[in-house]
Amino acid sequence: MTVYNHVALIGLGLIAGSISLALRRNGQPVKITGTARSAQTRQTALDIGLVDAVFDTAAEAVKGADLVILAVPIGAMAGIAADIAPHLKTGATVTDVGSVKSAVIDAVGPHMPKNVHFIPGHPMAGTEKSGPESGFAHLFDNRWCLLTPPKDTDKNALAKLSEFWQGLGAMVEIMDAKHHDLVAVVISHAPHLIAYTMVGVADDMSRVTEQEVVNYSAAGFRDFTRIAASDPTMWRDVFLHNKDATLEVLGRFTEELFALQRAIRTGDGDFLFDYFTRTRDVRRSIIDAGQDTDAVDFGRVAAAETDKK
Amino acid sequence: MTVYNHVALIGLGLIAGSISLALRRNGQPVKITGTARSAQTRQTALDIGLVDAVFDTAAEAVKGADLVILAVPIGAMAGIAADIAPHLKTGATVTDVGSVKSAVIDAVGPHMPKNVHFIPGHPMAGTEKSGPESGFAHLFDNRWCLLTPPKDTDKNALAKLSEFWQGLGAMVEIMDAKHHDLVAVVISHAPHLIAYTMVGVADDMSRVTEQEVVNYSAAGFRDFTRIAASDPTMWRDVFLHNKDATLEVLGRFTEELFALQRAIRTGDGDFLFDYFTRTRDVRRSIIDAGQDTDAVDFGRVAAAETDKK
Repeated sequence: MTVYNHVALIGLGLIAGSISLALRRNGQPVKITGTARSAQTRQTALDIGLVDAVFDTAAEAVKGADLVILAVPIGAMAGIAADIAPHLKTGATVTDVGSVKSAVIDAVGPHMPKNVHFIPGHPMAGTEKSGPESGFAHLFDNRWCLLTPPKDTDKNALAKLSEFWQGLGAMVEIMDAKHHDLVAVVISHAPHLIAYTMVGVADDMSRVTEQEVVNYSAAGFRDFTRIAASDPTMWRDVFLHNKDATLEVLGRFTEELFALQRAIRTGDGDFLFDYFTRTRDVRRSIIDAGQDTDAVDFGRVAAAETDKK
Repeated sequence: MTVYNHVALIGLGLIAGSISLALRRNGQPVKITGTARSAQTRQTALDIGLVDAVFDTAAEAVKGADLVILAVPIGAMAGIAADIAPHLKTGATVTDVGSVKSAVIDAVGPHMPKNVHFIPGHPMAGTEKSGPESGFAHLFDNRWCLLTPPKDTDKNALAKLSEFWQGLGAMVEIMDAKHHDLVAVVISHAPHLIAYTMVGVADDMSRVTEQEVVNYSAAGFRDFTRIAASDPTMWRDVFLHNKDATLEVLGRFTEELFALQRAIRTGDGDFLFDYFTRTRDVRRSIIDAGQDTDAVDFGRVAAAETDKK
């Protein structure tokens, strides 16, 4: 069943592209309009069929839309919210896919007219790629989309948005925005910052050549470089807009790292062994929950075989 | 061409198992004997054909072998070296696959008789799995094996060992042991310790439930859990035996993390953006060097498709 007849995508990158492809996969009739900051992105999105029509401005793109999805870096959201506000259809739902929710509520909420439903969201899926051509239809399959509706959100509007995400393949969970922002740091923001840091250190060690780093990366480092290849603008905005939760988790991380560092310095093998054993169990739970594959070789065996074909 | 007629595997885990399978893949006649500490591992290795004969002790397993490969945690190497020393064939080569080289040279070197060649080595490949059944024939294909021969190593013996690793699919590089130990921290040991730490923090945050961590892990965290699922005994020994280089790189890491943390606290978006842009280039080099795939969705698309079949 078509949940919304007309969807407007503001921003046409990995997430918006994947939403479009997942919508098309369902074969339901839905009109998709969109816009992006760069003329080249707009043209590409039109050429590869992500949108039925593309517009130079967000104000034009949202006209008549039943669902408006803000899929731009968090720092750009307030400006766009102000631009589109006068052009939103009565009864439309406005949502977003930003990685931080309190900041989006602060940036977008004040601009929203009373006759539209504003329900922030965050699909917990992505890759290190960006741009309209990086999307794929099954990105959200079996992944979670977290919705953080403000108090007094219309129940029907919330039910419709949940149904929309389920139609894209996702599972939906309702969550408090502040709690979301802490959870997101633990499972996404802190791992990204740490990966960026480690890759920066490797790039910077004058006694280890770049060629050595590159050649021998299969021993663990390459997974960090994959994470650290994510979109710089998006991630800059994430950290600037989720400051408190990020600094809290980094504080915990440093404390923990110092404890392990101390165990290494003092030769406390039991401490290290116990720590490394405990973390194995977390991995098991993630595989059991279907959130990663158990394939050996870091999931690269199957990928490599496919490459050969 | 068969490089060694008889290979003895001391320890029968992921690396030894993969060596055996890669040797068998070549179809050359080679006798493989082996031993492992646990009776169950010995039996499994025999049952799945990793070895032609299995022995209760390393002393028996090395008898008549042209090449002896120590594939046990670093902490176990000195004891094994002492045990096998009187039973080594004249002219045999003894090597290892440990992740640290100076410590192995200190532990094994003094026990080696004058009539054998001792050439430490480290194949830069692996997965988070362990045990005899986790090996696979193409683990070393297109990966690097670093050899750290002591001064005065016999040139022919070194050439033969290089040829052996090339026969398993690897590329060989000769390196100074101390330099190896620093490179290994940057591209392997530090990323592992950091991943263990982050998974430990997530497991420990009382305000974030384990179910939340597991469900939403696709947003970055799951790559950390994969690394942090590696063998605890092996990694305990790595850190205990590569203390100085590990502490040096962790010091650099913390300094860098604090710089990023400060940029977040002060809202320095340009610093963050520039940092995140620089790390993207390292990723590109690794893909160009064939040390990872460029497949989207963290290499999990192909794996997931395979799972469905």
